[in-house]
Amino acid sequence: MELKKEESVVDISQVTLDEFNQNPLYKLVGIHIEEASAGRALSRLRPKPEVCWPFPNQPHGGVLFTLMDTTMAWAVLSLLKSDRNCLTIHLDIQYIAPAKGDYFVCAAEVSEQTRSMSFLSAEIRDSEDQLLAVGQASFRIIKGSLFKPQGE
Amino acid sequence: MELKKEESVVDISQVTLDEFNQNPLYKLVGIHIEEASAGRALSRLRPKPEVCWPFPNQPHGGVLFTLMDTTMAWAVLSLLKSDRNCLTIHLDIQYIAPAKGDYFVCAAEVSEQTRSMSFLSAEIRDSEDQLLAVGQASFRIIKGSLFKPQGE
Amino acid sequence: MELKKEESVVDISQVTLDEFNQNPLYKLVGIHIEEASAGRALSRLRPKPEVCWPFPNQPHGGVLFTLMDTTMAWAVLSLLKSDRNCLTIHLDIQYIAPAKGDYFVCAAEVSEQTRSMSFLSAEIRDSEDQLLAVGQASFRIIKGSLFKPQGE
Amino acid sequence: MELKKEESVVDISQVTLDEFNQNPLYKLVGIHIEEASAGRALSRLRPKPEVCWPFPNQPHGGVLFTLMDTTMAWAVLSLLKSDRNCLTIHLDIQYIAPAKGDYFVCAAEVSEQTRSMSFLSAEIRDSEDQLLAVGQASFRIIKGSLFKPQGE
Repeated sequence: MELKKEESVVDISQVTLDEFNQNPLYKLVGIHIEEASAGRALSRLRPKPEVCWPFPNQPHGGVLFTLMDTTMAWAVLSLLKSDRNCLTIHLDIQYIAPAKGDYFVCAAEVSEQTRSMSFLSAEIRDSEDQLLAVGQASFRIIKGSLFKPQGE
Repeated sequence: MELKKEESVVDISQVTLDEFNQNPLYKLVGIHIEEASAGRALSRLRPKPEVCWPFPNQPHGGVLFTLMDTTMAWAVLSLLKSDRNCLTIHLDIQYIAPAKGDYFVCAAEVSEQTRSMSFLSAEIRDSEDQLLAVGQASFRIIKGSLFKPQGE
Repeated sequence: MELKKEESVVDISQVTLDEFNQNPLYKLVGIHIEEASAGRALSRLRPKPEVCWPFPNQPHGGVLFTLMDTTMAWAVLSLLKSDRNCLTIHLDIQYIAPAKGDYFVCAAEVSEQTRSMSFLSAEIRDSEDQLLAVGQASFRIIKGSLFKPQGE
Repeated sequence: MELKKEESVVDISQVTLDEFNQNPLYKLVGIHIEEASAGRALSRLRPKPEVCWPFPNQPHGGVLFTLMDTTMAWAVLSLLKSDRNCLTIHLDIQYIAPAKGDYFVCAAEVSEQTRSMSFLSAEIRDSEDQLLAVGQASFRIIKGSLFKPQGE
């Protein structure tokens, strides 16, 4: 994707990600965002045993979805100024193969982003690079900030 | 939906559901399956604080997806014999309004089910009956059983 | 759906529909919009032989999609003032059974519509009321008018 | 995608495509399949004026869908033996930008194909290489043949 030039998009540094990776949802599930820059984001899931149900050692489909949805959101955020946030309008996920292994990697990429909307695709692979799930989504860009919580 | 007659579909009693509702994923997230019968299933989410991120008191979209996906699976299971199980092929979810409130109800219904596939739709509403999310999905019917864990 | 009250939504009369039903696309394919009111629309496809390929007497999946997409658009339009139009953001269609028969009926309904977006679901049935396809979609509401062509 | 090796997949030669490109649906709409090989297919739409409605010179969204669906089917077919055919289970299409221009190119690619199912993604671009629509789909592999019409 050739990105629209935005003068001052938020700089999502490693420090920022380190902080966000401490949020309770990510820790509960086992999600870690590794990079988010220029409309792309990369994350890793090391699933907690509790989210591997009904098949032992296999994260539930909803956990893979959560990984994909949040990784897509970071790809959108990487193109926004710090006073904007995003909401998922729709996400279509396809499950291609059973998710087995120690960790899973999700790569998300913005196909096109305007002032009000973003379109993305993403995929999840296992540690052997086997494709497990693919998805596409549309997000809405809204006022607000993930970086300055509401009420502060 | 007019269901295909199956001579001996699994009887998903309240006792069975009570047992399954103790699985670690449901407890972690706050999911409770209330009914699963004749191609329909009903569930309730009382989200744990940990899954309400990034907006306080609002379950993450991935949690609503997990609720929808698993409720759909129960609707499929309610039409299967006990030696069959199901896998999500794809699920398309649309987020219609922010999810606020103490609990959320998901209703899933099979539109059509054959020997090898099931097509479903579902919706999630809040305690005020406001529509929050809708979804549609296809599942594959496979050999195996949720009721007799693998290896037993 | 409980519709938001709009003071003066466009009145899509039978005369209006009669006129629109003469458009070249509908005639080419065999589409006829029968009703569009209060967030619901109903249409009928009597497929031309040319669009029944590769299976004789069965309209191509793209024709069923076209029927669904345009019927959804009419459901959206029925809630808009005459200076607004709509665009499909995404549509997810599932094909449940082969489409055989003389005619096919599509019913579309808005689940929720705001100033800027609409969420819908739709289904297509054959003349025996057999469910053939289901879909869900999001549309964007834009300035413009279907009723006053651009440039006039 | 690393394709599963199939000993004798159908050879979709230019001669074969030339013949199929004469089918009534493609001619009505303006579709031309250009290549189909090894899980990939490429097609071109030169839309007939009749399918450009309601916006002049812009093919209807259903026409872009038809182009995408049929191009995906050719990508699936390129991996099948001649006694197999495919059916769309679901297709999720996202419309990213208005479709203007003389012609449109669709590229479809199989992500994963097993004996019974295929998962694909596709995109449509205009003559300036602007991305207009993206889609993902699942297809079922069935007995039958596109190459030996039923009844012969």
